[in-house]
Amino acid sequence: MRNFDYSAPTRLIFGKGAEKKVGETLAPLAKKILLHYGGQSIKKSGLYDRVTQSLKDAGIAYIELGGVQPNPRLSLVREGIALCRKEGVELILAVGGGSVIDSAKAIGVGVYWEGDIWEVYENYITADKMLPVATILTIPAAGSETSNGSVITNEEKQMKIGFGAEVFRPVVSFMNPELFFTIPKNQIANGVSDMMSHVFERYFTNEKRTDLTDALCEGTLRAIMKNAAILMEDPENYDAWAEIGFAGSVAHVGLLGMGREEDWASHGIEHELSALYDVAHGAGLAVITPSWMRYVCRENIPMFQQFAENVMGVQGLRDPEAAIEEAIQRLQAFYRRMALPTTLTELGIKPEDYEPMSKKATAVAYGRPEAPLGMLKKLYWQDILEIYKSAT
Amino acid sequence: MRNFDYSAPTRLIFGKGAEKKVGETLAPLAKKILLHYGGQSIKKSGLYDRVTQSLKDAGIAYIELGGVQPNPRLSLVREGIALCRKEGVELILAVGGGSVIDSAKAIGVGVYWEGDIWEVYENYITADKMLPVATILTIPAAGSETSNGSVITNEEKQMKIGFGAEVFRPVVSFMNPELFFTIPKNQIANGVSDMMSHVFERYFTNEKRTDLTDALCEGTLRAIMKNAAILMEDPENYDAWAEIGFAGSVAHVGLLGMGREEDWASHGIEHELSALYDVAHGAGLAVITPSWMRYVCRENIPMFQQFAENVMGVQGLRDPEAAIEEAIQRLQAFYRRMALPTTLTELGIKPEDYEPMSKKATAVAYGRPEAPLGMLKKLYWQDILEIYKSAT
Repeated sequence: MRNFDYSAPTRLIFGKGAEKKVGETLAPLAKKILLHYGGQSIKKSGLYDRVTQSLKDAGIAYIELGGVQPNPRLSLVREGIALCRKEGVELILAVGGGSVIDSAKAIGVGVYWEGDIWEVYENYITADKMLPVATILTIPAAGSETSNGSVITNEEKQMKIGFGAEVFRPVVSFMNPELFFTIPKNQIANGVSDMMSHVFERYFTNEKRTDLTDALCEGTLRAIMKNAAILMEDPENYDAWAEIGFAGSVAHVGLLGMGREEDWASHGIEHELSALYDVAHGAGLAVITPSWMRYVCRENIPMFQQFAENVMGVQGLRDPEAAIEEAIQRLQAFYRRMALPTTLTELGIKPEDYEPMSKKATAVAYGRPEAPLGMLKKLYWQDILEIYKSAT
Repeated sequence: MRNFDYSAPTRLIFGKGAEKKVGETLAPLAKKILLHYGGQSIKKSGLYDRVTQSLKDAGIAYIELGGVQPNPRLSLVREGIALCRKEGVELILAVGGGSVIDSAKAIGVGVYWEGDIWEVYENYITADKMLPVATILTIPAAGSETSNGSVITNEEKQMKIGFGAEVFRPVVSFMNPELFFTIPKNQIANGVSDMMSHVFERYFTNEKRTDLTDALCEGTLRAIMKNAAILMEDPENYDAWAEIGFAGSVAHVGLLGMGREEDWASHGIEHELSALYDVAHGAGLAVITPSWMRYVCRENIPMFQQFAENVMGVQGLRDPEAAIEEAIQRLQAFYRRMALPTTLTELGIKPEDYEPMSKKATAVAYGRPEAPLGMLKKLYWQDILEIYKSAT
C-alpha cells in the first residue's frame, strides 16, 4: 500500500425529503447564497419551489444563476464569479448533477482567484480557498457532490479539463433518491457508466498489495451493476436508486483509491470526445473503457483476472487471457443492456478526428505536449490512436 | 436503505514516516498541546523522541500526561481536564491505541463541559465542543483515530460506557504501519477481534436492501481475516499491517453502517466483562460474538446465510441453519488460530457473575433499568444471561 493523505469532510444528508433540510442546514453558514442550476427541469418537478421555500423559511436570501449545460462552460463560470463578487454571496447552492456542481466549484474558487479562473484548470493549480459549496443532487453520476474533483469545458479552446484538489470538496450535500425517479433512461445509463469508471480508474493499479480497497472497489462495482439493471426495468425503485446514489458518492469520494496507484487514462481519452463532439461523458466511457482494457490488460494480468472473477463472475476459465476477454465481453454486454453505445461510430465520431484527439489528449494532460496518459501503461498519442481505432 | 446524515472529516495521514509530519501538520492548529500517552513503551521504541523532536522543530510547546491504562479511567480524564484548563492547552495529541485516544476525547470534551465529564457519558449527551484531538496510532483496533466514538471506564462505579457523537472526531490522525511491528501477538489478536466486531455490529441488520454496504462490510471482513493470519506468522509484514491498520479505521469510521439498522448488542454484552474483570475488549468479543450469533441468527436467516457464503466462504450446504452453524464454527476456528479465548471460563469469568452482569448490561444501556440491547433481536437480561451461559 502506498502512503496517502485522505480526508472527505463533506457532510452527506441522505434519504427521503433530504432537500427540505437545506434551509435549516445552511442558515448557520450563510445569509446570502447563489442558487445555481441548469434548465427548467427543477422548476417543472417542483424541486425549485421546495428548495426556495426552505431557504425563505430559514431567512436565507438568494440570487439565481441558471443555464448550466452538460460539460459546463467556462463562460457561465466567469459570469457566476462576477455575480458572486458583486452581490456579496457567501455560499453557492448547486441544484443539479455533476455539471452544475462542477460549475459551482469553479465559481467558488474563482471568487477568490485574482486572475482568470481558467488558469487554475489549465495549470492544475491547487487553490487555497473556495466559497462554500452545498449541493442538492438530481443525477447521480459524477460523484462531485462529495468528491474533490471539478471538470470545466473551455468552449473557445475546445478543451475539457478536470482535476482534483481538496479545496473543491462541498461543505454539505443533500441526496434524496426520490429526486432520481424522473431521470430518463439514457441518463441513468450515462451516470452508471461514469460512476463505474470512477472505480475502474482506481481499481486497475500497479500497486501489489491492496486487499482492502480491492474488495471495496469490487463490492461497489457489483452493487452498481445489480441495481442499474433493476432501474432499467423499474426507474422508480427507491431502494435501487438509494444504492446507485450512495454508490456514486462512494465511487468518487477518494476512499477507493487510497494507497493505490490510480490510472485515469480512460477519463483522459474520453474527455477529448466530450470536448470536440459534446457527447455524454458516460456514453463515451462505455465506448473507451473496454478498448482501453484490451489494450493494457497484459500489463497486469493478475489484476484483470481478479476483475474477471470478483466483479464479472467469470469462473472456470483456466486461460487468464480468455477469462479477461470473457469479462470484457460481459462488461460490454452490460453496457448494451443499459442501451449505451459501444463504438465510436455510434457516437458519430469521425475517424479523421482520431489523430488530432489523440494528440490533444496527451498535450492537455499535464499542460505540456507529449505527456502520456495512464499509469498501468503509459499511453502516448500513438497508443491512444490505437485505442480509438479499436473502438471504431 | 434508511435515511442518514454522515460525515467523516478526520484527515488520515498514512504510511511510512507519517508520525514525522506531526509538527508541521499541527503547527497551524495549536501553539501549546497536551501530549497524552500510556506507559513507557513509546519511550523505549523511540517514538516519543521522534514526536517531541517534530513538535520542537515546529515550535510547538507541549506538556505531558502519561499513564493511560487499557479501559481508560475516568480519574485520569478528570486530571487531564484540570491540566488542560490550567495550562491553556489548545490541542491534545494522543499517542497510543484506542484507550489513549478515547481518554483524549473525554478530556477534550471535558475542558468545555461545565459539570463533571462523567455526566456526558452516563447520559449519552451530545456535547457541542471538544478541544481538537490529533492522534498517532500505535495499535490498530478501536478505530477511535477516525471514529465518532469514545469509551470511558468509571472505575469507582465499575461502569464502562461508550457512545458516538460527531464532536468526538479527531481533527487529524497519523498512521504508520511500521509502528505496529512490535505489538505482541495477543494484542494483534485483540485488535483484530475488535475491528471485526465493529463491522459485525453494522453488518447484521434488519434493513432489507443494503447491497453496497453489505459488500463493503464483507470485503472489509475478508481483508482483515486474510491479513490477520499473515501477521500471526510474520508480525513485521508491512503490507499486512497496512491493510489491518487502514481496515481498523474503515471498520469504525461510520461508512459501513450508513443506511443500515445497526445492532451493537455484542459490544454491550462484552463491556460488562471488561468493566468487572478488566479483560481485553477484543478477547471478550471473541467469546461473546459467536454465542450472540447462535442466539439471534434465526431472526434473520438470509443475512446470516449471506455472511456464511460471502464472508466465511461456506458453499454447498443446502440447509441454511447448517450453513450458518458452519460459518460460526469457522469464525471460532479463526479466533482460535489467533490464540483468542472462545469461552468465558478461559477469561476467568465466574458463573455467579453472569446474572448481575446481565442485569447491568441492560440497565446501563440507555441510562434506565431493563432497556434491552441490540436491534436484530431485542435482548433483555434473561437473553443476555443465556448468551453468557452458552459461552461458558
